[in-house]
Amino acid sequence: MVPEKNEGGYVMDEIFQKNYSLLITNVKVNGNPADIFIDETGVIRDIGENIRKVHKGKAEFIIDADGAIALPGLVNTHTHSAMTLLRGYADDMFLHDWLSQKIWPLEAKLTGDDVYWGTKLACLEMIKSGTTAFNDMYFFMEDTARAVNEMGIRAVLSHGFIDLANPDKRELECKATEKLVNHIRSLNNPKIRSAVGPHAPYTVSKEGLSWCAECAAEHKIGIHIHVSETEKEVNDCLSQHGKGPVAVLDECGILTPRTVAAHCCWLDEAECQLFGKRGVSASHNPVSNMKLATHRAMPYHWLKAANTNISLGTDGCSSNNNLDMFEEMKTASLIQKFFWNDPTLLTAPEALHMATLAGARALGLPTGILAVGSPADIVLVTTRSSENVPMHNPISNIVYSCNGASVETVLCDGKVLMLEREVQGEQEILTGAGKVAFDLVNRANQS
Amino acid sequence: MVPEKNEGGYVMDEIFQKNYSLLITNVKVNGNPADIFIDETGVIRDIGENIRKVHKGKAEFIIDADGAIALPGLVNTHTHSAMTLLRGYADDMFLHDWLSQKIWPLEAKLTGDDVYWGTKLACLEMIKSGTTAFNDMYFFMEDTARAVNEMGIRAVLSHGFIDLANPDKRELECKATEKLVNHIRSLNNPKIRSAVGPHAPYTVSKEGLSWCAECAAEHKIGIHIHVSETEKEVNDCLSQHGKGPVAVLDECGILTPRTVAAHCCWLDEAECQLFGKRGVSASHNPVSNMKLATHRAMPYHWLKAANTNISLGTDGCSSNNNLDMFEEMKTASLIQKFFWNDPTLLTAPEALHMATLAGARALGLPTGILAVGSPADIVLVTTRSSENVPMHNPISNIVYSCNGASVETVLCDGKVLMLEREVQGEQEILTGAGKVAFDLVNRANQS
Repeated sequence: MVPEKNEGGYVMDEIFQKNYSLLITNVKVNGNPADIFIDETGVIRDIGENIRKVHKGKAEFIIDADGAIALPGLVNTHTHSAMTLLRGYADDMFLHDWLSQKIWPLEAKLTGDDVYWGTKLACLEMIKSGTTAFNDMYFFMEDTARAVNEMGIRAVLSHGFIDLANPDKRELECKATEKLVNHIRSLNNPKIRSAVGPHAPYTVSKEGLSWCAECAAEHKIGIHIHVSETEKEVNDCLSQHGKGPVAVLDECGILTPRTVAAHCCWLDEAECQLFGKRGVSASHNPVSNMKLATHRAMPYHWLKAANTNISLGTDGCSSNNNLDMFEEMKTASLIQKFFWNDPTLLTAPEALHMATLAGARALGLPTGILAVGSPADIVLVTTRSSENVPMHNPISNIVYSCNGASVETVLCDGKVLMLEREVQGEQEILTGAGKVAFDLVNRANQS
Repeated sequence: MVPEKNEGGYVMDEIFQKNYSLLITNVKVNGNPADIFIDETGVIRDIGENIRKVHKGKAEFIIDADGAIALPGLVNTHTHSAMTLLRGYADDMFLHDWLSQKIWPLEAKLTGDDVYWGTKLACLEMIKSGTTAFNDMYFFMEDTARAVNEMGIRAVLSHGFIDLANPDKRELECKATEKLVNHIRSLNNPKIRSAVGPHAPYTVSKEGLSWCAECAAEHKIGIHIHVSETEKEVNDCLSQHGKGPVAVLDECGILTPRTVAAHCCWLDEAECQLFGKRGVSASHNPVSNMKLATHRAMPYHWLKAANTNISLGTDGCSSNNNLDMFEEMKTASLIQKFFWNDPTLLTAPEALHMATLAGARALGLPTGILAVGSPADIVLVTTRSSENVPMHNPISNIVYSCNGASVETVLCDGKVLMLEREVQGEQEILTGAGKVAFDLVNRANQS
């Protein structure tokens, strides 16, 4: 499926350069044969069978998708993208040992340049596995923004706000948060937004949480926070505050329709109901939860009963160890069935919804759906390989049989980011990120 | 990495035709740079850094692996390969509804031709994801053998023996088993072996189990059986026999060093110890167990403490829904950590051992290891893509970050089955299998 320039002749590199009006022919949308027409502003203008006849004259490029399944770009609602640099650095350890002996000492040596390269690698990996938007919390987020801007995908970026009940530290974190919000506004890239990132109820004081809630409200931006990942943090909160983490967050104004709560493994039924009432989005992170042995799966059924918007995230590469949202969809469905003892729980269509429309809603994005008038965040999944044969049910194959490598072509906001698995600059990113990761470990070992 | 004929010139197709003496240069073996020399009988004759100088004159073909990680071919110790045809046909259902309303009615319409094409598709999928040997139980196994023989991989094939305590049915099953054993002997293909396949303690009478044990002993072949997949079957066995399934199997002589017991979710500690004592191999099938909500993970720690040989299998595509052993390695490690509440359980090296050497031992194969004198069942995994960047720990990346699509090249018994992801006849298999799967569902719906 080499793209064809409408006036004839074939090109590869040119299509990556900027937005063009595009006609994608021969795809399947919701199981039906279709063509998709996208205008030069990146908006889907028409979807339907054989609309190629109508739009052929208007499209600058034509991509024959050869029967591929078209999906909305996947949305990863919880990650720490630059942690790609730590992939495989430490596994199979107890959480506290893993953090204190391995992750934190390495993170103490991180530079902005490291974060830039780690994010480039993460964006490359996301594009190659069909993700076009992500929700990120980490450090050196201006460097993250630089990398995301170059890679052309969508992101909501937050500075990981940790005050450990120290007022001086809190003041610094407030300043860092304000600085990032202003910086991202100055980029003037509608695909990159800021959020406020209070790390978790056990690492941020009530004063810090309240400040974050006010800051987010003032700027009308999102809140990205870890909630009830482990049993220990819930019990510690009960001891310290006489109430659970969700009650503490509610008291501080953190539970809003702009809030994404990651993990949520240990929520009780009343907390799920409060999430529904406040319009909070949950981000399910099953691979990370299993790898770090949280020992309880997010109560999907209670959140669903409370009409909570439930999305999906990979968490960082140090606890996953990849960013493949196809793998995450499958694992989400598997862990829910297994842990809650019900094979009918979290069906394939629900998993796909979590990874697309629910993710977009969680981040306040106009994507997550293939519809006329929506931005063209589009992923084409090959049907010419064994994971999609036979095709009794495309959504089942997408969730249970495919993985990220089944993705052939990716568009974000109408711009082609991957074509037939080619991403521009891939080798440079792999080399650059590999080098900084190696240097980072060397620096940590020398000190 | 186009293979180079030693006298010069490049070929693609010729290398698939038969065994050649091969020099694979520029691989990583156990983390170290190496070359591998394989003679024309398919045996690894030398492994080491820069041995290319010694062997260059002897090799008919040279494959430059471009820094790929070399692994032993993966071994899938429990599947029903032709069930690829049912991929995505029915999901998200209760076990009994799923079997009685969907799977059994479709299986009742299966023909030998269907099984042939389903197995071709399964072998293609296994080759594309690095599996070179599998343990199969199903029907129409002569057609399975025909497909495996054409595809060039290793298999141990058993007729699924189900007598439901009916003596007439038992006699037919004994005959079918004997017929398959004789047929496979007549093929005279050392890569294809037979086994006896008593389906499970709850579907085969004690008389049937005893006959299977004797038949396997007489022919010195393996036994392939489902054991304690669900809590219900264990409770039913206790009610019916006054003892658990493992005690029943032991009484009938089924527990031998040639026995592969699939699932094993509900084994208790004493049963694990008996497995160790009898030399039984377990086959862990975590994806299938999660999808069907067995609600308990195989007690890996007890089996390990009993020195049981613990291998890994995907189960059939109807409950997985693919045959990717990379995905299975990761899920095995994740489910053990999560369910048994210990993030140090089932480390990456242990997962890789399960999928290679333990699998080979379970099936009595001389493979599962890259060593001089061993058959060349070799898988090359690319290091030129994001899942292997950075490379702090190759085995961690293999287990936690890669998937089957990371595999570039596959050899079985010294013969090249895939080169740079090209498998001969791929399109014909996808088309053929897709067609019979479609026809099968149509036949089932018409009746």
